[in-house]
Amino acid sequence: MRYHKIPDETVRRLPIYLRGALHLSQQGVKGVSSQKLAGLLGVNSWQIRKDFSYFGDFGTPGVGYDTSTLIKHINRILNLDTVHKVALVGAGNLGSALLAFPGFEIYGFEIVAAFDSDKRKVGKKNSGVTVKDISDLCVLKDHGISMGIIAVPGDAAQDITDRLVNAGVRGILNFSPRYVVVPKRVKVITIDIAMDLARLPYYLPAG
Amino acid sequence: MRYHKIPDETVRRLPIYLRGALHLSQQGVKGVSSQKLAGLLGVNSWQIRKDFSYFGDFGTPGVGYDTSTLIKHINRILNLDTVHKVALVGAGNLGSALLAFPGFEIYGFEIVAAFDSDKRKVGKKNSGVTVKDISDLCVLKDHGISMGIIAVPGDAAQDITDRLVNAGVRGILNFSPRYVVVPKRVKVITIDIAMDLARLPYYLPAG
Repeated sequence: MRYHKIPDETVRRLPIYLRGALHLSQQGVKGVSSQKLAGLLGVNSWQIRKDFSYFGDFGTPGVGYDTSTLIKHINRILNLDTVHKVALVGAGNLGSALLAFPGFEIYGFEIVAAFDSDKRKVGKKNSGVTVKDISDLCVLKDHGISMGIIAVPGDAAQDITDRLVNAGVRGILNFSPRYVVVPKRVKVITIDIAMDLARLPYYLPAG
Repeated sequence: MRYHKIPDETVRRLPIYLRGALHLSQQGVKGVSSQKLAGLLGVNSWQIRKDFSYFGDFGTPGVGYDTSTLIKHINRILNLDTVHKVALVGAGNLGSALLAFPGFEIYGFEIVAAFDSDKRKVGKKNSGVTVKDISDLCVLKDHGISMGIIAVPGDAAQDITDRLVNAGVRGILNFSPRYVVVPKRVKVITIDIAMDLARLPYYLPAG
């Protein structure tokens, strides 16, 4: 089953809803209203209802959404109902934090390979993954790894992007502070961790 | 000048536009159309025009937006036209990456204090900031620090949040993999770095 024409903004919010539904499910909560889900996640309830309506509203009026159905639907829409192998490039502070981060697992991601250009890091284990030399990136193709995470300095970002694309990667999560250019067939999501901080002062009292 | 009633989703996108405008300005680009800006940032041009309309559309039809005016407006709306001092709690891998991250500066943020509970880290310098013991968090009040970043394990997140709130912090960027509860006067933005990866498979070809 493939869902069509879902706006990018809705796709962006689906993991937020998924995370909330997983949290509720772990707590034994079987059903949830859009209002309750909105309160937990800090989003608008009308937004939730609108987003869910894109793939057929599966809630019950006056009752809400069944958490396990919710999880199943969102996982299927986002193609998360299978394990995804991911390669990480850059095993510095941020890369090490990502390797150690327990949160990828709940979405079915497994960082199975890590690469760095620093010879002192190559060959060493980092959170159970042996760091390989950047020149070995071409092996990704043989291992069916189609997603990559970039955690390198800005200067190296485009070069690493090109290498990942050449190695057959189709989706890139870019943590470097630089925009990168890719062919149309490749999807890049650029994360600027400072950007999320940049909207906090809006909510603070003046002075 | 204070702008009212801007939806959270628009506030979320403003730093994205700001970053794009800063990038263009650095390259000497004086004016930009919503289409060009949209292409650079990977968002819809109608979304940009709609977002900008909340604070008075300052573009020129058929010409576009003046990048320096754009930067000035967005900085003012987001209260970024002043330097913000920020405290970081958790000087592990992620915390160290945040301390070293050059991207906060462009938005006027300065991480001026870092805290950790690990005695081996306390007293040592990390990217120029001396790490203090977590029990010293109360000093934030005296230094006029109203924003905090949490980069601690999930188990410690709520405790650290309570301490930050008690120390007078009004805005928190939470990188821990846990929801935290705060009084209404405090704004929390929770970042799940795995969540951004979770929408990538949607864009990948099946199989």
